[in-house]
Amino acid sequence: MLKSKTPKQSEVTMTEMVLPNDTNTLNNLMGGRLLHWMDICAAISAQKHSNRIVVTASVDNVSFTEPIRLGNIITMHARVTRAFNSSMEVFLEVWAEDIPAGIRVSTNRAFYTFVAVDQNGRPIEVPPLLPETEADEELFVSALRRRQLRLVLAGRMKPSEALELKALFEIKEEKA
Amino acid sequence: MLKSKTPKQSEVTMTEMVLPNDTNTLNNLMGGRLLHWMDICAAISAQKHSNRIVVTASVDNVSFTEPIRLGNIITMHARVTRAFNSSMEVFLEVWAEDIPAGIRVSTNRAFYTFVAVDQNGRPIEVPPLLPETEADEELFVSALRRRQLRLVLAGRMKPSEALELKALFEIKEEKA
Amino acid sequence: MLKSKTPKQSEVTMTEMVLPNDTNTLNNLMGGRLLHWMDICAAISAQKHSNRIVVTASVDNVSFTEPIRLGNIITMHARVTRAFNSSMEVFLEVWAEDIPAGIRVSTNRAFYTFVAVDQNGRPIEVPPLLPETEADEELFVSALRRRQLRLVLAGRMKPSEALELKALFEIKEEKA
Amino acid sequence: MLKSKTPKQSEVTMTEMVLPNDTNTLNNLMGGRLLHWMDICAAISAQKHSNRIVVTASVDNVSFTEPIRLGNIITMHARVTRAFNSSMEVFLEVWAEDIPAGIRVSTNRAFYTFVAVDQNGRPIEVPPLLPETEADEELFVSALRRRQLRLVLAGRMKPSEALELKALFEIKEEKA
Amino acid sequence: MLKSKTPKQSEVTMTEMVLPNDTNTLNNLMGGRLLHWMDICAAISAQKHSNRIVVTASVDNVSFTEPIRLGNIITMHARVTRAFNSSMEVFLEVWAEDIPAGIRVSTNRAFYTFVAVDQNGRPIEVPPLLPETEADEELFVSALRRRQLRLVLAGRMKPSEALELKALFEIKEEKA
Amino acid sequence: MLKSKTPKQSEVTMTEMVLPNDTNTLNNLMGGRLLHWMDICAAISAQKHSNRIVVTASVDNVSFTEPIRLGNIITMHARVTRAFNSSMEVFLEVWAEDIPAGIRVSTNRAFYTFVAVDQNGRPIEVPPLLPETEADEELFVSALRRRQLRLVLAGRMKPSEALELKALFEIKEEKA
Repeated sequence: MLKSKTPKQSEVTMTEMVLPNDTNTLNNLMGGRLLHWMDICAAISAQKHSNRIVVTASVDNVSFTEPIRLGNIITMHARVTRAFNSSMEVFLEVWAEDIPAGIRVSTNRAFYTFVAVDQNGRPIEVPPLLPETEADEELFVSALRRRQLRLVLAGRMKPSEALELKALFEIKEEKA
Repeated sequence: MLKSKTPKQSEVTMTEMVLPNDTNTLNNLMGGRLLHWMDICAAISAQKHSNRIVVTASVDNVSFTEPIRLGNIITMHARVTRAFNSSMEVFLEVWAEDIPAGIRVSTNRAFYTFVAVDQNGRPIEVPPLLPETEADEELFVSALRRRQLRLVLAGRMKPSEALELKALFEIKEEKA
Repeated sequence: MLKSKTPKQSEVTMTEMVLPNDTNTLNNLMGGRLLHWMDICAAISAQKHSNRIVVTASVDNVSFTEPIRLGNIITMHARVTRAFNSSMEVFLEVWAEDIPAGIRVSTNRAFYTFVAVDQNGRPIEVPPLLPETEADEELFVSALRRRQLRLVLAGRMKPSEALELKALFEIKEEKA
Repeated sequence: MLKSKTPKQSEVTMTEMVLPNDTNTLNNLMGGRLLHWMDICAAISAQKHSNRIVVTASVDNVSFTEPIRLGNIITMHARVTRAFNSSMEVFLEVWAEDIPAGIRVSTNRAFYTFVAVDQNGRPIEVPPLLPETEADEELFVSALRRRQLRLVLAGRMKPSEALELKALFEIKEEKA
Repeated sequence: MLKSKTPKQSEVTMTEMVLPNDTNTLNNLMGGRLLHWMDICAAISAQKHSNRIVVTASVDNVSFTEPIRLGNIITMHARVTRAFNSSMEVFLEVWAEDIPAGIRVSTNRAFYTFVAVDQNGRPIEVPPLLPETEADEELFVSALRRRQLRLVLAGRMKPSEALELKALFEIKEEKA
Repeated sequence: MLKSKTPKQSEVTMTEMVLPNDTNTLNNLMGGRLLHWMDICAAISAQKHSNRIVVTASVDNVSFTEPIRLGNIITMHARVTRAFNSSMEVFLEVWAEDIPAGIRVSTNRAFYTFVAVDQNGRPIEVPPLLPETEADEELFVSALRRRQLRLVLAGRMKPSEALELKALFEIKEEKA
């Protein structure tokens, strides 16, 4: 078994400036462009964890609530939250900043999953992830539920078998 | 209330050729690039339904199971499945084709949601969707469940209130 | 001889959104950008007919009469009209749409020709085209005249030998 | 009437390096990409002649006979050959060079036409062209025939009225 | 006078993946592409220090000693080293990483200068820089010498007046 | 030893139109974009001199004093000024033109150096440069001083050994 790694070892920061071709006719960043940048940032994080070529396996539900303007600076932070054999879940946080106006807002949170592959494109084992901080631990635990949701949505797991996913529903309910 | 429209009226076909800059070091299309194209294709479909400028509100879980190669032709079909006040759900199907090899595979299915906005970026009402075929009807009905899942995932609905979503779990279970 | 194919089998629909970098200082789509998109769309159509790699052999005279605006949606339809040994003529129709304004105009019609090549770039035989509809038939017949015009303009045929081309002149004259 | 200008005053040289995204799966430059570059080069030439914003009105038949390879250097020369009220014909010559191999080939010749417009996009008068050299003169004279061919092909002139165009046919015939 | 800021407040990390169009025919990153990325990264740093729109005023001598390969990950760190009225010097360090091979090399160090401007493009005052660490202090002090070299090279200062620059020569000599 | 070549044999003219994605929020060309174009133009010049693949070795200090606007036409002229074994210095002059306004300004002068390499990326000898005109001669002679400055700045030469560089200081002083 490979030696485990911490989330810190796969941390990546990526910065982009919103240019005219990235925007719609309202001069707001198009959602797909941001998904593209997030995929590259998350892929580099998964590469760092596995020291392998990686291919995107999935992206979870992403919401776009804040308009991001032409000329804004996008900052993305990514780190691996959990590894499963040859696959890794990566957590991304995105901020948009209008620097001259001194405004910085959290715009998106997302989970991408990647599979590490060898030179022939076949899946290959990756190191386990060892959470360090409390936040790491929370993401590590909840990764199981997110994985079950992905499998259920892809029709590869029966909802009845998604035990942790059901727990998510109940936990959320208690919080609310 | 605006006059309703059929899914057919918002149908969009988009075709892309996979070029070198769209690929990773294995010469496979990067997932984020495809998400970007899908967003543009789906946005045009939502524009057609609403005759408005639209902004991406969310993308649901997307899985990438088939490697798509450099030089492949990507075909995307999009159509609106349901409208909710100012928002629309768009269903996308994606195929990749290696034409010289005579191979064509279904690679992705996805749901994007868009909000129609006026010139100042404020949400504005869109026409209701009127399903025509049986397939339209199925997507129309299940749109409610997907919407509840989005709201639950965004922390804006309690799982206990997501009645149709729960039904999805049970229905799926019976099928399996 | 290869089994013939219909124009329907090579039909391609391509959709593009006019982005800032595609426009001049009047915010109108640059003609060369459109020629580039049309070439890709037509090449995919020729690929579909021949199931081969194809290279552009020529583009016939293209006129640009309608300004196309930033944010407009471009729709292109292409299909093969006739095959000659290793070459194919592709007919393209282009529309531009300002969806929020509900305006859609036919902007261009063009003929591209492609040569099918093998992996070493040598010309290789393609299937004959079998026209189905009356419109197909008309394009199939007139393809001969357009081919003669191309050969005359390229200095590879004497005008006196371009019999069908002369007929084109007379036919047009009668119509006018 | 505006003061006439010589072809030399509108001469433009443009150089491009063929990059991966400009090529097809055989690593050859795509025809549409070249048409795009030629349009920009020719537009700058028409701008120089008219000192106006210009829009592409048409491109004449262009043939692609030489494969151009990844890494090749493209050199384009453009100059105005004749002006007609608000429109200008531009002649382009294109060479491709494999510098390490010491090979340089003439790959294309083309005629683009542009219309000079004011800030509202309305056609506006341009200076007449005054040919200087014998080559200039030949292009100036033949511009009339090419213009008639454009008008006939666009259905805006009867072939019977295209007197110079008919002459072209006869002249060519004699040469052959 | 504006409140001073520390180098930490203008720190920017930017990450890029080397894609095919960024490389030459040896599959190495082109120097100009890197200069382009460095300019954007440094500009964001200068924006952060000044909370203003900034324009590039100069880049100092940059050497390219390490080949950077297709698929490598580029990491750039930038921070402001000193402010002079409306201009700021930004120091950049660049690393290239072949993650699957586990190789990371320092490839470039550079100094860019920017001028902060108002909405009409006129220079406007920026906060002074207050160095914190010993490394900050060293860059702060030597910024004066680099500024003199820039002015001498631009012909805007006599070498005889460039007192600190002369000192640089002597200091370097002693070290060697 | 290879047969020497003149600066004229490596002359390159490159023309670019400033498009929206090349500009900042003031609609001015970004400095890094210009450095990117200059690198490509200079590399082609060095290729022409050496008939080899070339890689950028360094760029000397570049100042940006004139804002260049969206829609402006950039003209770059490059030629080799001196060769040293496997490296070449290239001199670049850049002009920006607002053609409708009839304004053309000299915006930049720069020196790039390139190393000629074989197919394995190893340095390889290039022809000596033989200056022809007085301007060629001046650039040829001063190339030695610029080279010493590069070596001193890169920490690869002691200032005390940079004899010609010292002379530069004294000459400049006398002129002033």
